[in-house]
This record gives sequence, C-alpha cells and structure tokens, in this order.
Amino acid sequence: MVNVGILGATGMVGQRFIELLADHPKFEITALTASARSAGKRYEDAATWYLDSPIPESVKDITVVDTDPKEAKDVDIVFSALPADTAAIVEPKFAKSCIVASNASAMRMEPDVPLVIPEVNPEHLDLVEIQQKNRGWDGFIVTNPNCSTIALTLTLKPLYDQYNIKRVYVSTMQAVSGAGYNGVPSMAIVDNLVPFIGGEEEKMESETLHLLGEFDGESVVPAPFGLSASCHRVAVVNGHTEAVFIEMEDDLEIEDVKNCLCNFKGLPQKLDLHSAPKNPVVIREEENRPQPRMDRNTDNGMAVTVGRLRKDAAFDNSLRYVLVGHNTIRGAAGASILNAELISEIM
Amino acid sequence: MVNVGILGATGMVGQRFIELLADHPKFEITALTASARSAGKRYEDAATWYLDSPIPESVKDITVVDTDPKEAKDVDIVFSALPADTAAIVEPKFAKSCIVASNASAMRMEPDVPLVIPEVNPEHLDLVEIQQKNRGWDGFIVTNPNCSTIALTLTLKPLYDQYNIKRVYVSTMQAVSGAGYNGVPSMAIVDNLVPFIGGEEEKMESETLHLLGEFDGESVVPAPFGLSASCHRVAVVNGHTEAVFIEMEDDLEIEDVKNCLCNFKGLPQKLDLHSAPKNPVVIREEENRPQPRMDRNTDNGMAVTVGRLRKDAAFDNSLRYVLVGHNTIRGAAGASILNAELISEIM
Amino acid sequence: MVNVGILGATGMVGQRFIELLADHPKFEITALTASARSAGKRYEDAATWYLDSPIPESVKDITVVDTDPKEAKDVDIVFSALPADTAAIVEPKFAKSCIVASNASAMRMEPDVPLVIPEVNPEHLDLVEIQQKNRGWDGFIVTNPNCSTIALTLTLKPLYDQYNIKRVYVSTMQAVSGAGYNGVPSMAIVDNLVPFIGGEEEKMESETLHLLGEFDGESVVPAPFGLSASCHRVAVVNGHTEAVFIEMEDDLEIEDVKNCLCNFKGLPQKLDLHSAPKNPVVIREEENRPQPRMDRNTDNGMAVTVGRLRKDAAFDNSLRYVLVGHNTIRGAAGASILNAELISEIM
Amino acid sequence: MVNVGILGATGMVGQRFIELLADHPKFEITALTASARSAGKRYEDAATWYLDSPIPESVKDITVVDTDPKEAKDVDIVFSALPADTAAIVEPKFAKSCIVASNASAMRMEPDVPLVIPEVNPEHLDLVEIQQKNRGWDGFIVTNPNCSTIALTLTLKPLYDQYNIKRVYVSTMQAVSGAGYNGVPSMAIVDNLVPFIGGEEEKMESETLHLLGEFDGESVVPAPFGLSASCHRVAVVNGHTEAVFIEMEDDLEIEDVKNCLCNFKGLPQKLDLHSAPKNPVVIREEENRPQPRMDRNTDNGMAVTVGRLRKDAAFDNSLRYVLVGHNTIRGAAGASILNAELISEIM
Repeated sequence: MVNVGILGATGMVGQRFIELLADHPKFEITALTASARSAGKRYEDAATWYLDSPIPESVKDITVVDTDPKEAKDVDIVFSALPADTAAIVEPKFAKSCIVASNASAMRMEPDVPLVIPEVNPEHLDLVEIQQKNRGWDGFIVTNPNCSTIALTLTLKPLYDQYNIKRVYVSTMQAVSGAGYNGVPSMAIVDNLVPFIGGEEEKMESETLHLLGEFDGESVVPAPFGLSASCHRVAVVNGHTEAVFIEMEDDLEIEDVKNCLCNFKGLPQKLDLHSAPKNPVVIREEENRPQPRMDRNTDNGMAVTVGRLRKDAAFDNSLRYVLVGHNTIRGAAGASILNAELISEIM
Repeated sequence: MVNVGILGATGMVGQRFIELLADHPKFEITALTASARSAGKRYEDAATWYLDSPIPESVKDITVVDTDPKEAKDVDIVFSALPADTAAIVEPKFAKSCIVASNASAMRMEPDVPLVIPEVNPEHLDLVEIQQKNRGWDGFIVTNPNCSTIALTLTLKPLYDQYNIKRVYVSTMQAVSGAGYNGVPSMAIVDNLVPFIGGEEEKMESETLHLLGEFDGESVVPAPFGLSASCHRVAVVNGHTEAVFIEMEDDLEIEDVKNCLCNFKGLPQKLDLHSAPKNPVVIREEENRPQPRMDRNTDNGMAVTVGRLRKDAAFDNSLRYVLVGHNTIRGAAGASILNAELISEIM
Repeated sequence: MVNVGILGATGMVGQRFIELLADHPKFEITALTASARSAGKRYEDAATWYLDSPIPESVKDITVVDTDPKEAKDVDIVFSALPADTAAIVEPKFAKSCIVASNASAMRMEPDVPLVIPEVNPEHLDLVEIQQKNRGWDGFIVTNPNCSTIALTLTLKPLYDQYNIKRVYVSTMQAVSGAGYNGVPSMAIVDNLVPFIGGEEEKMESETLHLLGEFDGESVVPAPFGLSASCHRVAVVNGHTEAVFIEMEDDLEIEDVKNCLCNFKGLPQKLDLHSAPKNPVVIREEENRPQPRMDRNTDNGMAVTVGRLRKDAAFDNSLRYVLVGHNTIRGAAGASILNAELISEIM
Repeated sequence: MVNVGILGATGMVGQRFIELLADHPKFEITALTASARSAGKRYEDAATWYLDSPIPESVKDITVVDTDPKEAKDVDIVFSALPADTAAIVEPKFAKSCIVASNASAMRMEPDVPLVIPEVNPEHLDLVEIQQKNRGWDGFIVTNPNCSTIALTLTLKPLYDQYNIKRVYVSTMQAVSGAGYNGVPSMAIVDNLVPFIGGEEEKMESETLHLLGEFDGESVVPAPFGLSASCHRVAVVNGHTEAVFIEMEDDLEIEDVKNCLCNFKGLPQKLDLHSAPKNPVVIREEENRPQPRMDRNTDNGMAVTVGRLRKDAAFDNSLRYVLVGHNTIRGAAGASILNAELISEIM
C-alpha cells in the first residue's frame, strides 16, 4: 500500500477524496490536513461531513494536522483539495519530496507542470522531468483540469483524434457543489439561476486547448481551434451539464461520431486502473438524456454521459450534443486519483 | 372599448391573457372559451387559477362557452391560447369574422399568416391582405412566435439592422411554466434539468430567421444567416434565460453593441402602445445578471434583459451575451396583446 | 430460490421492487406485470426507468405480461405496486394461490388482512389463518402501511412499549416521489410547497394505531391513544421528514428515550433477514439533522433517522423529535420485501 | 411628511423597508445607515439589491452613513433592520431622541420595551411611558416579533378572544429569505430541508404568549396556555408556512372558527392605516391552499392566509389549520412600519 495524504481534507472536494480513497486497493490514507483551526482534532470532530454517504470509519480517528510537509509526514502522494491561493504556496513545499496530485487551479498553467487527464494526454507527464530539473525537486506536481473542462475534453478527445475540429461553443449548466458547500446561497438558486461563475469560462477555454495540445519535448503547444464558453449555475446538487456545438473542417456522419465516442478507450482503460471507467464516454439514445440526477453516477461517477447527439441543421460539418459529468468525482477528486493511479503504474 | 374573447381561457397562457387584459384601457373581455367540460360554468368555477396575482373580479362571473364562433359572439378580437392541434381547426373558423391574435404555433409558418413581433417586423402585417384574399375571410389570423424566439429576436433585431450577422448559437435554460401547469413533473426538475423540449429548437431556428426576413410583397424571405439552438428545461418558475454567441462579418466594439441594444425602439414605442415596454431591451452591467427571478418582470415582463455582453476571445468579430425574458408575458400572452394593440392602432 | 412476480412493475414503486430484488439472495424475479399497453413488450422497452441507479441487466429482457394470475404464472410470491383501485380487484385473484405482499392501500384495513411492519407487529400475521378460512384462499394477502406511517411507527413502537403514550401530533414534509413520477407538477413545488396530500392524514391516523394495536385472536384492537397528522409536500425527491410531538402519561428523561430508540431491535434483526437494517432507528446528535438528502439512504434506505430529540418545554411529560425515512424504500418496496422475507422465514 | 431613517439599510430586511417606504404617503426616507464599509457611498453603489422589484429611484443617490445618531440626523423615526448584537448597542443610542421601530430581536423581551403587533396588542404601547421614565429617553424603542411568530399570532388573537385555548402545537416550513441573502447555502436546500433554525422555536414560544398577554400597568403577564414549536427551513424563497394544531377548553364549530378569523379586524383596520391589510386573516377554501408562492403576497404581503381549517378527529375541542405569511413583509419590515404608522396616529 502507498501512504497518501489529503491536503484540505475537510472541504467538499477533500471529503470526496476520503470517500473515494477509503476502500482503495493501493492507496492508504495516513495523513489529513486542514487549516490551523482544525489541526489537532479528530477528523470526525474537525469536519462537518457533507456527503450523502456516511463518513468512512477508517478516517474518523485520524488526527488532522496543519497543511505543512513537516506535519504530514511519511506520505508518498498527497492529494490537494486546497483553495488556489493556499495551493500556490503549499504545494511546492510538498513537491520537494512528494508526488502532489492537485485539483487546485494554482499551478495548472505553469509551463512545466503537467495538466493531465489520463485518457487524454498521459504523454504530458513527460513534463515532470523538466519540472524536477527546473525546480530541483525530488517530488513533483501534477494537476487535473477544472471540473467542466474535464467532462468536455473527454468527449472532444476522440473527436479531435478523428476529425479536424474548427470551432467549439459550449454553454454550461453547473451544479452548486462546484462552488463548495457555502458557495452559492439558496436565495440565488431557488426559482433562479446565476449566469456567471468567476474565472470558469477562461479556464475552460485555455485548459481544454492545452490538454489537447502537443508536448513538443519542451512545452505544450495548444490545440489550434477556437473554443468559446458561457458558464451558468443552476439548481442541481451534483453533475455539470454542458450543451456543445462543434464545427468540423469536413463532413461527418452522426453514426461515425457515435462510434468514435463509444469506442474511445484511453490508457487507464488499457491499464485497467482501479478508478478508470469502463468507457470514459457513455452514449444515451433517449431524446431527453443525459440528465444530471440520473446520469452523474454512471460508472461510479467516472464516466461522462453524452446524449442528444445530432447534426446541426444550420451549419455544414457541424454537430451538437449535451453531456453530463459528475463535477466532484470525475471533475475533481476522482480526476486527481486517476492521475495518481496512472503515475503509480507507469512512472 | 373593443370586445375581446380569450380562446382556451382556463390554461396557463389563458390566465395570463386575463391578468393582462383585466384593466386594459381599450380591450374589454366579453367572452371566455374552454373545452366542453368547462362550458356553462362560471369562470371562477371552471378554472384552477395558477397565477400569483389574484383572479380579477371582473371575470369571475363570466360564463365559459365552447371554443366555437357561434358561442363566443360579438367579439372583434379573439386571443388564442389554444393547443396547436385545436388551434389549427378552430382559429380559421374565428378568422372568418374576427381578428385572431394567436399564441398557438399551428398557423405560424403558413406563408400567408403574419408571424409578428411589433418591434421587429410590423411590415409583415401586409400579409393580411393576401391571407384574406386567399382564404376569403373577413377577419384574419396574426401570430406571435414561440416564447424563446421572441426574447432572442428582440435582441437580434437591432444588431441585424446594424451589423452583418454571420452565425448565431443559442443555448436556453427555460422555465417550467412554458410547458403548462402539468407539463414538467417535479421528479424531472428537482436536483435535475431536462436537456430537451419537443419542437423548441426547430421553432427557434425557423421562426427567428422568418421574423428577421423580408416581406417582398408576396411572401417572407428568411434572413440569410445560420442559427443553431440547444434547448433545456431548468428549475425556474417563470423567465427563460438564453446564452447567445454571435459571429458578425465585420469587427465590432462592445460599446457600440451596447448602445445599439439600449437605444433600440420599435413601432410600439413610437406609437406608445399600452403594453409596449419603454425599452424592448434593457442592459444590466452587473457581472452576474440577468437572473430570471430578478429580471423577468422588468417593465411588467415586457422587456428583455441582457447582461454579460462581452467579446468572444476565441473568435474574431464575435460577441456573447445572456438574456432573460418572461416566457408567459413577453413570450406569450403579452406578445399577442401587443400585436392586437398594434393592429388596432394602424389597420 | 423463490420465484417472485412484481405487479405494476413499470411505475415508480415497481421499479424500486426491481432494484431491491435484482440481487436478492432468496427471491428471483420471474414475472413482471403491467397494464395491457405494456404487455408483450420487453421490460426495458415497456418502462421508462426513473431511478438513479441503472436498470438491472437481469430484468431487461423479461417479457411484461398482463396483471392476471393466468399470465403471471409459476410464482410463489407477488409484490404489488398497483394503484389502489386495481389492487382491490386483482390482488384477491392472486391470493387464491400466491402470497401477495402488497404496498397498495386497498386491502390494508380489511379486518382479516394483516397490516404489518416486521419490527412492529409480526404477530398480526396470525390473521392469515382467519383470512384463508374466511375467503377460501390457498394464498393470502399481507400489506404494509403507507410510507409516512411506517417511518413514524418504527419510532413509536419502542416508545409505546416502554411508556404510556397519551397523544401524538405529527406534521410531515413529504418527498415528491411519493406521488409517482407524474404526481406533483414542478409548477406546484418550485419556490412552493403543497399543504395537502389526499387521504394521507387519514391513513397515518388509522394505520399507526392499528399497527400498534393488539391482535386478540380474532381481530386487531387499535392502540388507545390519539394521533393527529398534518401532511405537506415539499421540494425533496426522496425521503419523508416528520416533526413529531408526543405527550406521555408520565415523566421521562431524554437519555432514556434515546436509549430506548437506539436499542430497539425487532424480529427481522433477530432473524437477520436480508433486508433488515441493523438498527431500525438511528439517532443523530447534530442539531440540524436528520436531513432527507443526507439521511434517507441510511442502512440502504431501510433505517429511520431521528434527530433533534428534546423535551417539550411547554408541556409536562412531553418530547419532540424530527425523523427522516426513505419513502419508496423503507416506506414502500422495501417494506413489502421485508414482510415477504419474514413470511418466508417463519411461516 | 415625517423624516425616517433605516438602520442596516443594505441587508435583505433593510431593502424591504426601502421598497415599502419608497412611496409612503407619510414617511420620507432621509437617512440610510450601514456598516463602516458602506458609509460614504451612494446607496446604489453600497447595496447589492436583492429584491425582484427594481431599486427605487428616490434612494439611489442617498449617501449611506454610519449607524450612529450623530450621522443619521434629523429623523423622527428610525426603522431598525440591524442584527441582534449591533441592535443591542445602537438602538438605545437612537432612542435617546428618536422613535425606534425595530425588527431586531435584541430588545424584544426587555420588560419595558413594547413588543407589538398593531392588530393584536396595541395597548402594550403604554409601556413606552415606563420605558422613557426608566431610561431617561426622549424617544423610545418599539419592537415587532419574529416573522413566524407574527403570522401565527395574527391567527391566534381572534381565537384567543373567543375561545379558551388550552394548548398549541406548531410546525413551520420557513422560507430561506428569513436567514438573509447568504444565510442558507443552496447545498443545504436543493433536494433537502433543514429541520433546525437557531433560536426560532424559543422565540415563537415566548413571544406569542407575551403578545397575547395582558399589560397590567407595570408589565406584561404572558397568556396562560402552552405552545410548542418545531421549526424547519424549506426550499421556498419567501413566505413561511405553518401547520397549527390547537386544543380548546370547550367544544367548537368549524364554521364559527372560520367566521371568527374572517371577521377579525384590529385597530389598524379601524384607523385605516396605510399599510394595514383589509383583513389581517384571509381564509382559502381550496383543499390545497395556502401555498407560499400563491398566497404570500395577499394584500401586499400584509395579510396572513389560512386554509385547511378542520376539526381534529383524534382529539375533542380541537382544530387544525395551515397558514402562510410573508416573512420579510408582514413578518419583518411591514410589521415595523405598521407599528410606526400606529404610533404616528395615536401617540
């Protein structure tokens, strides 16, 4: 078993890490960190448990420590659920000696930090060597993208491999859990929606092209198409829904696109990693799917569900679809864990 | 006072007609029709009143009659809130002698039936003459578009007049009231959304281009750009939200676009029609507006609110914005009433 | 394995039966019935699957048959998820040769039909002999109570055994799934609640006292205290919440009440029945629990969670608490299955 | 016109004060106070406007000042929407020279501070004389009760006058606006409810009996019956719903109770005060009313709507009903304003 720690273990994504790692066959939670206010307490006393599943017995009695490598010792991998500003300061400290699999946005776009979805761009992990050399670290940081980016990119990857994508428009309907437990007041969401999520559109636009970009041995050259996002918060607890419009350079047939998405397998599927979904993309044929409450948990929340796949009558070489992905599993904690599983297997 | 009737007066849109007409300075409700089950009853007994405002005293005692011109007599204008299939049969009967201002979709795309938003294409009313000649009617039918089309088109019209629109993508988040009181089960919408509304995308795509099209004296030639829609139902009672992406042929400045939208006035504003909003399009500068619960009632629900007006970083000559419009006022009953007010004034 | 059928298998409770029975160690689904419209179709084609978990592979290809003992043959037990009116006609036909474990309300208050919660009144199953004699059946009908009754009665039973209950007031906040998929329109529940559920208060008041009543060898004598219910529907998908006020004849200590509830075990726990929760009643100490989304799935949805257990400052000998129970698992399909498991074990 | 100030003018209740006072015939807003962070700014720049109605033009340019009598000068009445801790410090300072009509809970149960609902206990205003004498103030403080208390007590008052109330149980389903804009996270309320509101049950229990109590010339003697409350937060924006169970000493007829509630008029109705509803209590006969979205705005949000009035089958001399009242209008800002209108008229 590999000893792992969770940085920022009391928040919403921290709790997902705990839930997903509690029965993990290779990783054993041996350290939980949080802010000074929680340090020294039993985890059960420090955290208000937000998830619908019960708090795992195995973590209840772990003593929470400060988010500091001197406190969270004897771990090989740390998973980071820290807010961006804290992550920027603390993750580099851990990376001196540990593998940091981070869900935070702080280091994602650093040129020598791999931003990885295992099914999409595992080869970007080659950046680790550059990172270690640049920074003189024995460990390293690997990041996963933003929740809405991951779901989108998992569906774009097989298409990008087979077609010449010209432009993508995406409009999201995102779950409130994405903002943390206290992030969205109920006054803002009952009989309402909020058509703005700070920084989200910029992240989707830059991260997606970066993920699909090519690592040329020194840095990542973003994919050469245009992507425009409009991001909105709706009254859904978990599960981001995205309406996607794509224009290709050439003609396409819907059946081919469907097969392309259905048959998509990446390295995690080939390596049969513990958290890998059988199929990263699942197609639903019903006219009114995917729906977040019905489809977010597909394959333990690690698969993205695509439906309403149809040609775009208005434009040549174009298609439209709707996708749903679980934002705190596939889009956050599960993404970091799959990164760590891949690293454990191949590095 | 002009005597008016309401066809399908017990449903959700029928009730909005009643609410909006109860204190109208020129129109007086003298007939209310419904299905055979309700005919013969007092309106208050026939209808389950769904609106938040109380049922107007003036209609409580009106006896509901069958939806038949022989029963609903002595009216000059009838407002139709009928379902499409009934409308197709009944509206032509009324049009023999009456003006039919219809919210139903049945006749909208008939070549000789004007589909009109008074601020957008009042000149399409010239089709009436052709319609009456074709069909031998003394009255005529005028229709208004689908709820989501109206809100979108009100914002596209001033842009279309000033810029060369190349393509439009729109993704909607629509209120449950658009499906009627029983249309969307709560099981489908609590902690969920439904990414499909039957026929809605097709209506948005065809009606919008028709409304912006040119009447050449014989028929309407649709506007020559592409428009693609993806339509979704969310947990909002009233007020449709739409994320709009537009590519123009040429460069644009956001300030110019803003002025173009703000300063837009149409014939209803010039004629100072009773139900005309002061400005058909209202701009909000806050980063998180428009929101349906906050903005749907702007100018009595007759104005469309636009926010998040911004350039599209990914594409040249492109802009994005979010709009909110009240789907059963500006998008349904209020639209038919404004059509009737315009007709009363100019024909 | 015992062959079982599900009557009314396509509705919401029918689907819960399928979900809960799909991997059952003793019961094997061999027949699924529905209305004539569905008969002859594969189950997957006949049903619109409403649950968040995927439709079990094992039932997809079962051919749905009419709800008639001639069609649903070779079954030892049938679970009934029929509407009350159909149940009244069809269940007696099945009872001629089968055990009918029914969730329908039709036969619940028949004097010779046991209304049973296995933890509460298993001895009422002795009515079966009288029923078979009265009606000349080889099989029999056993029913479970209404969803909100079950949750309440599971908490009242241990108290009733230890204290002299004088009066109970209960105010419910019930999930929309209790009315079936199409039962509650979203217009009725978004930014709203409905303070009425047809027949619910009467069922709670009569069934609870019947369940706690004594079987005197011939019939059931209801428990001798008063119970008053007020029932309301709120915007929750699954999980009924109930605020309970109880006055006892004598003084009480909260710690004793807590122990009484915590330590409660019934026959299903002693027999270790497959669907029996470890503890029928689980106590939460947090000041803001139980909450339906967080607590409905406790012990696979078969335990009732109680919180806010406190004395009533206004009245002597009084206490108050709030409970949450899963309405379509413990309150419906799971209740019938536990009844059948008990019968299989002891009869 | 009387010059009035609003203390805590940027919060949710502060905004309701502004909305309700903007067109008031006797009160003119001349001062708005907020925390130091907002002081010095134009009101429009200082406040994030939360209400569905637009921010009144007349207040946009008022400069917000510190909540201090030296800053908010030349006002005769101040309305307090302050949090309890601030109110405890600041309201006495204002009361040296002003009338303070407070919605804060800080001073409500002070023996010499009148806690008043104008229809219920206007005679408690006689405490003012004692207060001024005790404290040496030229002004004074008058308070209104908690939101859920006001709605309940308005329905209890006419019953208390006509019957001997023995005991009352009340279970509430309260709107999220009652906790302020940021009070309830959406994670806590989507597909969920929270069965706890800090301090609410205690307030309902003590304030209601105090309001119905008798002022004996020196202090208020609470009404001599028992009242027990259980308070819950549900997914409703505005409008508290309460299920009420009452046991009387003697027999009752539902028709008499209905008449008693319907015909109830208080001093505000007799004096025809500007904000007084025509009837403080409105009865709905439909089996599924009152509902918060439909009934909260009855008589501009100042009337309480009662429905489901029925005998309690389980208990003698007992009745049950459900009520809805607007929590931030009748239950907060409107309550303080009605107090001030009464004081202006009679003192």
